[in-house]
Amino acid sequence: MVAKKYVLVIRSEGFPKSSDFKLVEETLPELKENEYLAEAVFLSVDPYMRAYMPSLEPNTTMIGSQVAKIVESKNPDFPVGKYVVGGFGLRSHTIATAETKSELGFNTFLLPHFNNLPLSLALGVLGMPGNTAYFGLLELCQPKPEDTVVVSAAAGAVGSIVGQIAKIKGCTVIGIAGSNEKGKWLTEELGFDYFINYKTQNVEEELRKAAPKGVDCYFDNVGGDISVTVINQMKPFGRVAICGDISSYNATEPAKIISPIRSILFNELKVQGFRVSSWNERWLEGIHKNLRWIIDGKLKYRETITEGFDNIFKAFTEMLQGGNIGKASVKV
Amino acid sequence: MVAKKYVLVIRSEGFPKSSDFKLVEETLPELKENEYLAEAVFLSVDPYMRAYMPSLEPNTTMIGSQVAKIVESKNPDFPVGKYVVGGFGLRSHTIATAETKSELGFNTFLLPHFNNLPLSLALGVLGMPGNTAYFGLLELCQPKPEDTVVVSAAAGAVGSIVGQIAKIKGCTVIGIAGSNEKGKWLTEELGFDYFINYKTQNVEEELRKAAPKGVDCYFDNVGGDISVTVINQMKPFGRVAICGDISSYNATEPAKIISPIRSILFNELKVQGFRVSSWNERWLEGIHKNLRWIIDGKLKYRETITEGFDNIFKAFTEMLQGGNIGKASVKV
Repeated sequence: MVAKKYVLVIRSEGFPKSSDFKLVEETLPELKENEYLAEAVFLSVDPYMRAYMPSLEPNTTMIGSQVAKIVESKNPDFPVGKYVVGGFGLRSHTIATAETKSELGFNTFLLPHFNNLPLSLALGVLGMPGNTAYFGLLELCQPKPEDTVVVSAAAGAVGSIVGQIAKIKGCTVIGIAGSNEKGKWLTEELGFDYFINYKTQNVEEELRKAAPKGVDCYFDNVGGDISVTVINQMKPFGRVAICGDISSYNATEPAKIISPIRSILFNELKVQGFRVSSWNERWLEGIHKNLRWIIDGKLKYRETITEGFDNIFKAFTEMLQGGNIGKASVKV
Repeated sequence: MVAKKYVLVIRSEGFPKSSDFKLVEETLPELKENEYLAEAVFLSVDPYMRAYMPSLEPNTTMIGSQVAKIVESKNPDFPVGKYVVGGFGLRSHTIATAETKSELGFNTFLLPHFNNLPLSLALGVLGMPGNTAYFGLLELCQPKPEDTVVVSAAAGAVGSIVGQIAKIKGCTVIGIAGSNEKGKWLTEELGFDYFINYKTQNVEEELRKAAPKGVDCYFDNVGGDISVTVINQMKPFGRVAICGDISSYNATEPAKIISPIRSILFNELKVQGFRVSSWNERWLEGIHKNLRWIIDGKLKYRETITEGFDNIFKAFTEMLQGGNIGKASVKV
């Protein structure tokens, strides 16, 4: 069995170049007892993959999650024909066991029953991004009805779910993103109350109009100046969930920002960074809740799917540039 | 009765100038039913007073706490000869009732029994600064035995108590301050494990030596670059209590700092701003705990006392420049 995989060649700085990666072939050995062979069907491209690149050893397989079909098996718990979700990295074929974990500590598991929804959702609203939105918003921001919630990268895989869950909880929701097409989707289809285009509008002024009494909860995917602007307009005892720092991932030197410390102090804010792996033990709770909301018509999703294993780099860099709406992934 | 008080003339920027204040006299009326007249004995000078100056209306009495003796009374609960602690502002004499609160919402109360300790401690270790240390450290940082705790402005009224309570809780304690005289006091008398002089040493390097495995808790009094340096060296799930932002109080424009957001994210830190008034309902718990530790010889204090009501401005600005060791106050 000859598999293909993307290897990270060097830890280069700045925006990823195609020469940072190498597509290599490897011959996989015969399966041993308890192993199974999984063939990638959908591969995920997510901002965190960029964030972790500087900490990966050169010449290791690039990290990433996938939905894969079991095509050979010596493990009765993982029979041929079933699908798994796993952080196998950017590989076409993977030999795994029940204990296989991703580089970031995620478990591999059989795809739950999805009510005939697309398998690719296991990488989005019914997977890591959906759970990131579910646990990050509900556990760290603790939104109450009538609260005003701001989410940045609002049209992304996580942000679009955050805003909809906040709406389900009775909040006023303000989304920040970088194109009016995204804004139209957020306000006209997903029910967001306000949209701010950070590329064409003054975020500080627009936020003052949208939230004249201040912001209760901020779900932060981007960091940088936008986050300072939002943090400076929070109400006393506001909650900030730091989920991403996208604005810094491709920077070649550390960004300088106006210090948010005075606002954190004077408004007694709670600012908390998190990784969704903290809720590994409650993983299926998040999946089932989001699935229920989809079935009930309360939670909508959108996917930007690129075709072809060899187009992973293209899909990855387009996602980093904000080219996707909703979840970005690759169909093999 | 002719009283003296300091009025804030203008909201000037930068380091306070004597012309920002005016010493004025006012004739107080006769006491009405339920009122009492309190004569200042000790006046407190604290960093928060500078922080609030920009939000005070011009020509209002400057804020501040005092220990005052009741010299006249038409309220049986506040009899002549007793002492009160109140946020009366920088006044020599104040007419108050049982309901009088400070500008910042603090209650006024009769001085608790102090075991013959100096009355001035009601403005320090047995008052607001002591409670700030007690609740801020224990509730927000939640230090566990063996944790490494960093405190900035470590030789100040709050910082010196924070470090000692952390020692009582079995932690390794690192204090950051601006003179070797302060460092000597911290390590030789108060039991701090390490001292970093931010004026003469490289904080980043010294912190790496003192806490090679990283920092669990950071009690932040200063903000700015020092805070970023500490936050960038925290362990996963570290806790940061933001108590002050002294480095910014006298700035004429907002400081730019390296963004700490990536560290907050990657290490899943919790950063929380607070005001001690959040624990108003538990006020006496903090006072009694700190008093008990003083009696048991576990908690030491030091005061920098300036003589004379007319020297308040001098005491205030010297404190802002770090001229004090321990609690700064004025004896009338």
